[in-house]
Amino acid sequence: MHHQFLPTHYHLTLGPYAPVLRVQSGDSISTTTVDASGCDQHGVSVTPRGNPQTGPFLVEGAEPGDTLVVRIDQIRPNRDHGWARSVVAPNVVDPTYVKQLPEAPLADWQINHDEGTATLKSPLSKLGELTIPIEPMLGCFGVAPFRQQAISTATSGEYGGNMDYRGFKAGTTVYFPVFEPGALFFLGDGHAAQGDGEIAGTGIEISMEVTVTLSVIKGKTIGWPRGENAEFIFTVGNARPLDQSLQHATTEMLRWLEQDYGLDPLGANLLLSQCVRYDLGNMFDPAYTMVCKIPKRWLPVL
Amino acid sequence: MHHQFLPTHYHLTLGPYAPVLRVQSGDSISTTTVDASGCDQHGVSVTPRGNPQTGPFLVEGAEPGDTLVVRIDQIRPNRDHGWARSVVAPNVVDPTYVKQLPEAPLADWQINHDEGTATLKSPLSKLGELTIPIEPMLGCFGVAPFRQQAISTATSGEYGGNMDYRGFKAGTTVYFPVFEPGALFFLGDGHAAQGDGEIAGTGIEISMEVTVTLSVIKGKTIGWPRGENAEFIFTVGNARPLDQSLQHATTEMLRWLEQDYGLDPLGANLLLSQCVRYDLGNMFDPAYTMVCKIPKRWLPVL
Amino acid sequence: MHHQFLPTHYHLTLGPYAPVLRVQSGDSISTTTVDASGCDQHGVSVTPRGNPQTGPFLVEGAEPGDTLVVRIDQIRPNRDHGWARSVVAPNVVDPTYVKQLPEAPLADWQINHDEGTATLKSPLSKLGELTIPIEPMLGCFGVAPFRQQAISTATSGEYGGNMDYRGFKAGTTVYFPVFEPGALFFLGDGHAAQGDGEIAGTGIEISMEVTVTLSVIKGKTIGWPRGENAEFIFTVGNARPLDQSLQHATTEMLRWLEQDYGLDPLGANLLLSQCVRYDLGNMFDPAYTMVCKIPKRWLPVL
Amino acid sequence: MHHQFLPTHYHLTLGPYAPVLRVQSGDSISTTTVDASGCDQHGVSVTPRGNPQTGPFLVEGAEPGDTLVVRIDQIRPNRDHGWARSVVAPNVVDPTYVKQLPEAPLADWQINHDEGTATLKSPLSKLGELTIPIEPMLGCFGVAPFRQQAISTATSGEYGGNMDYRGFKAGTTVYFPVFEPGALFFLGDGHAAQGDGEIAGTGIEISMEVTVTLSVIKGKTIGWPRGENAEFIFTVGNARPLDQSLQHATTEMLRWLEQDYGLDPLGANLLLSQCVRYDLGNMFDPAYTMVCKIPKRWLPVL
Repeated sequence: MHHQFLPTHYHLTLGPYAPVLRVQSGDSISTTTVDASGCDQHGVSVTPRGNPQTGPFLVEGAEPGDTLVVRIDQIRPNRDHGWARSVVAPNVVDPTYVKQLPEAPLADWQINHDEGTATLKSPLSKLGELTIPIEPMLGCFGVAPFRQQAISTATSGEYGGNMDYRGFKAGTTVYFPVFEPGALFFLGDGHAAQGDGEIAGTGIEISMEVTVTLSVIKGKTIGWPRGENAEFIFTVGNARPLDQSLQHATTEMLRWLEQDYGLDPLGANLLLSQCVRYDLGNMFDPAYTMVCKIPKRWLPVL
Repeated sequence: MHHQFLPTHYHLTLGPYAPVLRVQSGDSISTTTVDASGCDQHGVSVTPRGNPQTGPFLVEGAEPGDTLVVRIDQIRPNRDHGWARSVVAPNVVDPTYVKQLPEAPLADWQINHDEGTATLKSPLSKLGELTIPIEPMLGCFGVAPFRQQAISTATSGEYGGNMDYRGFKAGTTVYFPVFEPGALFFLGDGHAAQGDGEIAGTGIEISMEVTVTLSVIKGKTIGWPRGENAEFIFTVGNARPLDQSLQHATTEMLRWLEQDYGLDPLGANLLLSQCVRYDLGNMFDPAYTMVCKIPKRWLPVL
Repeated sequence: MHHQFLPTHYHLTLGPYAPVLRVQSGDSISTTTVDASGCDQHGVSVTPRGNPQTGPFLVEGAEPGDTLVVRIDQIRPNRDHGWARSVVAPNVVDPTYVKQLPEAPLADWQINHDEGTATLKSPLSKLGELTIPIEPMLGCFGVAPFRQQAISTATSGEYGGNMDYRGFKAGTTVYFPVFEPGALFFLGDGHAAQGDGEIAGTGIEISMEVTVTLSVIKGKTIGWPRGENAEFIFTVGNARPLDQSLQHATTEMLRWLEQDYGLDPLGANLLLSQCVRYDLGNMFDPAYTMVCKIPKRWLPVL
Repeated sequence: MHHQFLPTHYHLTLGPYAPVLRVQSGDSISTTTVDASGCDQHGVSVTPRGNPQTGPFLVEGAEPGDTLVVRIDQIRPNRDHGWARSVVAPNVVDPTYVKQLPEAPLADWQINHDEGTATLKSPLSKLGELTIPIEPMLGCFGVAPFRQQAISTATSGEYGGNMDYRGFKAGTTVYFPVFEPGALFFLGDGHAAQGDGEIAGTGIEISMEVTVTLSVIKGKTIGWPRGENAEFIFTVGNARPLDQSLQHATTEMLRWLEQDYGLDPLGANLLLSQCVRYDLGNMFDPAYTMVCKIPKRWLPVL
């Protein structure tokens, strides 16, 4: 079944809140998200800033210990301008270089929906005009955390959250561990495009129309977000420093290869050792994000 | 001019040693490297293990403060088998997971030169047979470090060294800061292929035939290794934790964009913020390696 | 005014929960805490494990932006045995050493209240019997976090939480930023003694009788927990890695010296640079804790 | 036997250099060190800056795999003024705070030898005058590294080097692993006093008169510097981030307790878990330093 949902309020924490909609496993939802500052498709501020989340959506039958499957069917900006910070964050440059970072106001990026591009006009700098392809993605989405916590949309964890990974775009399927009955799925913080690491602290922030399909895998327990696209399966680790993010993601991938691909520990290690690829999600948020990937073509045929 | 050089001894540190050959800026050198364990094209141990280096090669006219340009013209395995560790290193998984890592002997990978593949037969694991394309690369190469240090080929720094980055393959040009007269260039530690991060502590370790072209850019001073290939320009940071590697690489990229691409600080930041890409070199060696990249198509036209 | 409060339920997250008692600024509260596993003074499990918290206590008049002052008047174990993990955590040893860590059951420590000591009998090891002085402390305490979050008692942040610092003992005064009306103060997780770093993941875990005096400093805003005892003023940073904990604590100390001790930025830096002391709180919890201290005798006389 | 040695040249790297003096195991040496900038007891620059080292001293009979014992008999400033940086380093504060760090010239500290104090007059700041006790210490000392490396006196490792730990003062005995025949002992970089962490990048830098007694423990192999004073035994880990320094030091302490104090692995873990203390050496140099300590009174009686 397909649901159309229009949000009337938003959350700045992921937690065990009353669901805005109850759906069956396998249902799709089309909805909207406001941008990170709480502005909607008209650029009007409708809720306080800080990655406001649409949701939560309750999936009937999801219980702690299950896995929630989120297929990102479509994500597209629903207005023609985004905003972004102009200067990289002080934590991504040498501490001795921080004083050389310039100060600058937010940058405006104009979206050309027909051409699928975003254009920056930067009158204050010599860069002039810069046009890049858009790759719409979700910066912050996930489920209610374990132990009935309510956690700020600034950060991320096993439950997902503000992972700010370029790979979370249309055509990608994401798996989350379920901690609360009904999973309680949230989404928001769309980016028209983003560099690796979200090193300025924002992508091109914009409101979105999003369609997702939610389903439940009963009795399957995972430790960290997982995902797949046409080419890769991947796991996501969220922590500081980057080393620990990578450790979480790598450990989760070893577990996945053993659980679902029929490999013994040695086989999982052998496959990973020469075939692994890593992506940097973000190195800006309180928890950084690293992604561990294996090309599907090298997975064992089950 | 093109030189053919056959090494008769090797170095386990990069330092201010007597050159084995003096070349002019613009000359090419074809030579061989032994594998990380000191074995040559016949699989015979000819020197102690630990990333033995061929060289150093002195480039006439290179002075401290200049930049050495190393174009990797060709790199190909010169025997038909490589070896690799089978199990990922304990520092790339969760500390609580380390006890679950299996123990296993080294893995043998057979090279098919015609097909450009490496094949692992793993009779001890359920993985069975795994065939992947080879992508020959240099694990450890660079110049004599600053302050007349002599530094182990296990690690890396501003001078290059054991960076273990998959991107150091044929067709790539690498730039090193010059610290000693003549630059004193070393190379070794070839890998037929390697996963991101060199997370098992080795790639597919093998001896190589390598051709490089060395030249000098007088009066140009850089802070960290830089490079370029058909698609990207990139900078390399070597340190622990990964966060610091990324900081070094990002800072060096900002400097590069300002020095050579006519950008002011704000322009360099704007370009980097939404267009940057990062690669993980290694997360195994004493210094980890992160690579900061900008697609050439988004660079300002000078 | 002095309150005697007997808890009937506990919290496993610090959040904006209904207060169990409302007190005036300047009031004292004597209450009890269960141990980290939820066992009371009789060793009986009365609530689920995980640093259950007594509270929250609402202090009338405390508003966001104020500071809550917590004087730890008394803290003493109210039973004669504590428990502890026997083996250090895998994250505090070299990754390559983890496999050599032994497996062992929990250790029992007997408390001698008259002598103020804890004694371990370790029949499984050659250590034999070990008697050390007790230094009762609070492992986890603090206020409701910002943005109405509810955060697990496993970790810590600007609001306090599971800091596991040996210095939080009787005679110490602690300052917390106030994020919710009434501050909402929680306490629990008593340790009869603890090594620096809580490196085995526990101190000597035990139930306690605790007396605290709570008061409010109106209009004073701080960024991280602060404290003082007879000898030092100190600031507390909670994050990973340890480097970041130290950065938070050091920055907060610079701010304190400027705000309250009449120093200009240069003076605060000069004082800190040669006089600072650091303590390691914990290196086990999701957020690590470092403490930055200045001896009171070197503070400017106001 | 007691040697008086007057240096005529200095080293900026620790490496396998020609010894300036050969001594027998058990001999004492009285010598001088210049300050970190290469200035001697007259404040005259006699060698280039960068922690110039006196030595190396060769101890007859020391072989790789042995341990060098260095008792610091005496260390006292031999002039009446030291210098220090005035502002903490950008890596010890929050990255977002770096721009608020002031700029200031070096600070002069006057030494009162009779009273054992150092006094700062800071006319540029409100701090005014600050007098603290001196605690003379060695910032950088150690032996020639493994693999015949020559490593900058800016950093540290298993061989010692620039550890900048306040505990390296008179009355302390330090143990170093021997990597080169004769050990080749270097010393320099004296500080009249230093805060924990050397967070401004210097202590009170001054030239020194130093007396050490060198001896060899044949056949005893250690992994990292160890030490002892009247109250503690301790181990030293040098790496980044602080977490890894602590891991090295803790692992080395577990090994020591098992090797020399008759403990089994469980006993070593039990002792460490509730009795360990940590000191911060430095968090400024390329490798940070953490020190793991056990009070001698809790060590097993052998």
